[in-house]
Amino acid sequence: MSAINQINIGLLGCGTVGTGVVRLLLENAKLIHDRVGALICLKKIADINLVPIKKLFIDGKPINAELMTQHAEEVVSDPDIHIIVETIGGETVAKDLILSAIEKGKHIVTANKALLSSHGNTIIEKANQRGVDLAYEASVGGCMPIIKTIRETLVSNHIHYVIGILNGTCNYILSKITNDHLSFQDALAEAQQMGYAEADPTLDVEGIDTAHKLSILMALAFGMPITFDPIYIEGISKLSALDIQLAEQFGYRIKLLAIAKKNGNAIEARVHPTMIPFHNLLSNVNGSLNAMMISGDAVGEMILYGYGAGMMPTASAILSDIVDIARNILSGSKGRIPILSYQNQAIKTINVLPIEAIESKYYFRFTASDKPGVLHQISGILAKYQISIESVHQKGKDSDDVPIVMMTYKAKEKDVRQALKEIQDLNVVTETPILIRVE
Amino acid sequence: MSAINQINIGLLGCGTVGTGVVRLLLENAKLIHDRVGALICLKKIADINLVPIKKLFIDGKPINAELMTQHAEEVVSDPDIHIIVETIGGETVAKDLILSAIEKGKHIVTANKALLSSHGNTIIEKANQRGVDLAYEASVGGCMPIIKTIRETLVSNHIHYVIGILNGTCNYILSKITNDHLSFQDALAEAQQMGYAEADPTLDVEGIDTAHKLSILMALAFGMPITFDPIYIEGISKLSALDIQLAEQFGYRIKLLAIAKKNGNAIEARVHPTMIPFHNLLSNVNGSLNAMMISGDAVGEMILYGYGAGMMPTASAILSDIVDIARNILSGSKGRIPILSYQNQAIKTINVLPIEAIESKYYFRFTASDKPGVLHQISGILAKYQISIESVHQKGKDSDDVPIVMMTYKAKEKDVRQALKEIQDLNVVTETPILIRVE
Repeated sequence: MSAINQINIGLLGCGTVGTGVVRLLLENAKLIHDRVGALICLKKIADINLVPIKKLFIDGKPINAELMTQHAEEVVSDPDIHIIVETIGGETVAKDLILSAIEKGKHIVTANKALLSSHGNTIIEKANQRGVDLAYEASVGGCMPIIKTIRETLVSNHIHYVIGILNGTCNYILSKITNDHLSFQDALAEAQQMGYAEADPTLDVEGIDTAHKLSILMALAFGMPITFDPIYIEGISKLSALDIQLAEQFGYRIKLLAIAKKNGNAIEARVHPTMIPFHNLLSNVNGSLNAMMISGDAVGEMILYGYGAGMMPTASAILSDIVDIARNILSGSKGRIPILSYQNQAIKTINVLPIEAIESKYYFRFTASDKPGVLHQISGILAKYQISIESVHQKGKDSDDVPIVMMTYKAKEKDVRQALKEIQDLNVVTETPILIRVE
Repeated sequence: MSAINQINIGLLGCGTVGTGVVRLLLENAKLIHDRVGALICLKKIADINLVPIKKLFIDGKPINAELMTQHAEEVVSDPDIHIIVETIGGETVAKDLILSAIEKGKHIVTANKALLSSHGNTIIEKANQRGVDLAYEASVGGCMPIIKTIRETLVSNHIHYVIGILNGTCNYILSKITNDHLSFQDALAEAQQMGYAEADPTLDVEGIDTAHKLSILMALAFGMPITFDPIYIEGISKLSALDIQLAEQFGYRIKLLAIAKKNGNAIEARVHPTMIPFHNLLSNVNGSLNAMMISGDAVGEMILYGYGAGMMPTASAILSDIVDIARNILSGSKGRIPILSYQNQAIKTINVLPIEAIESKYYFRFTASDKPGVLHQISGILAKYQISIESVHQKGKDSDDVPIVMMTYKAKEKDVRQALKEIQDLNVVTETPILIRVE
């Protein structure tokens, strides 16, 4: 066995998640020692604002003030520190500090999906060159072992698809609209009050955070570099409560899904509100919970389900990364698992199909004047584009305009878009047609 | 990096699961190489009956006959083999071969829950003495990473409970009775036809296989030796279709659950048919699927869901173990993770409470003569034992005997057993009362 019997941790950023890491490391120190067989020691904490951490009591005692600094570089430069845990977030300071720490031979644990999505390839290249580990379980799916499952459990599986509910804020808002019939604005306000949503909720509600996470999963699942730009992204801010209620009547719930699927030699990669039938387990994932469905050639379908965010669930994922790396150090292991799941030389660019190239089932809602022949005109255009209708529902007349709701069989998005454009141009159609994809 | 660039595997037993391992190793060899960066080579296959494996074609080619032998000791003694994969099953030959392989310094991968449940502590002790790895992900929950999740992902969590559906045969039978209204005998016969149930289904339907798996999970979750004997076990063979239907009417499904819960300084460990409300995800786990709910102090509740058995899902779990060990060998790592999740010196015997000591909610069904005062007598006895009734349902009169169904609030099993004994002794009660625990 190795001569090292203590692993020293430096923490950068001590907001909600960082505080969770401090608490878990200290409160469960004996448990962690019982399992790892060595001390995992919190050596330094850096944050611009140290007031909250000074107020934190663990087992009745305050944190030793000598551990704290406002100068992150002090932590990164400490020669005794083995692992740097970055919970600052964002793409500027966090990036510089991580690169600086790698340069100094520190192993890295981060929960920063935005950073990995934008600069992950560069950071991973540097980590590989310097021979350090970089772990990021907490960046996707909170406490769930999504990354470990793809990198380790499914190592012998060709993965067909990953489909997930990966943003707790959106899922909370959608659950509130569905179950409590709140408006989007009221549900968002409540999510903000509960601390689930940021003051500026754009990253969450516009699907960007979900796409950041998907870009990481695609790389791991399919053996490609981290690729964000070609992901098709549609958020939940434009969803109407009416469509959510109509979906319910048809036996579906609407969730913001991240979807990456093998499609021949290419992949589909998309984030959008999706209708899911009640019998699918994903439709029952409510509130701030996350879930991930993975299909592989040997395992068939597998689902992971748990808290996708929050102080302690996220801290738990970070601790699993810390311990993984600590075990590598203690057992004298180097480069045990490739950071991006595949060996470097096996990672290849894979074509991401444009949204027009996918096939899906669809939900349409048209708003049209209540005149004879409207349905005839709409269905004529759909037929022209080979779009077969599975069911039609025309709501009773509330006003001069009537909603016509349709569910289709599988159709080509390209055809659907052209058909909807033509339908929108009809004189009798009074609003932009609504389209929601169905899984 | 290590000088080794090829890991050699010896396979003992080539039935359904063994054949899956052969297929996955050969069919997905390029993928595995792309991810591990070294060749995982199937060096030898031992089975008494080599006919099926001689008929197996991978990518149009038969397996090289030189790999095959009918003498398992030949495989165990091969100095070139690094990892022995045991898929023989049972507790006799498999045990001797595993111990012999450990003696020779081979690492072990096994799916044998019966063996681990009975002799795991001895085998693990030998493996620790000899400094070899022993991996057994496929022994519990098929393709799901249950063991990896407890040993690695939840390393910083005090685990409160593990609750799972861990036997695909029982779950298939219960789903058939619930959804297709088959009798137990017909559902079992169908499970046997489908290859889900053995000719002798005792281990499965009497809950013993589930308890074998629970004994392994308890050790991992709570830091105790593998302990089978004090687990309370009740199978599904005595369940009546009537109770399954009545449960449905009350908004519950009946599943065979494995439950291990912290209860003060002791634990509860039990396997029995359990009523689960519809809104609980476990109630929607149908057919031969498995699911596992784990609660920890940091993660809250987490669920894993997937195929718990079958050729390829089980082979996938075995391959993840093979690759974990291969990565240890390739990266020069020794004793990276303790086999039973906790360091040896931290593993302590934990008291398993007798079933009488638990508290639960209950479903009762009494059969009584249709005479005045029956309900009064029964409810009087329940009141005497402090058992509060949440709801009562008395079925319309089909015959002279009427069924009375009750759901209770939380009560003590000890009280429940005494009350039911007194109720059974009433003159008006004509059949043994039925008790099903509710989660």
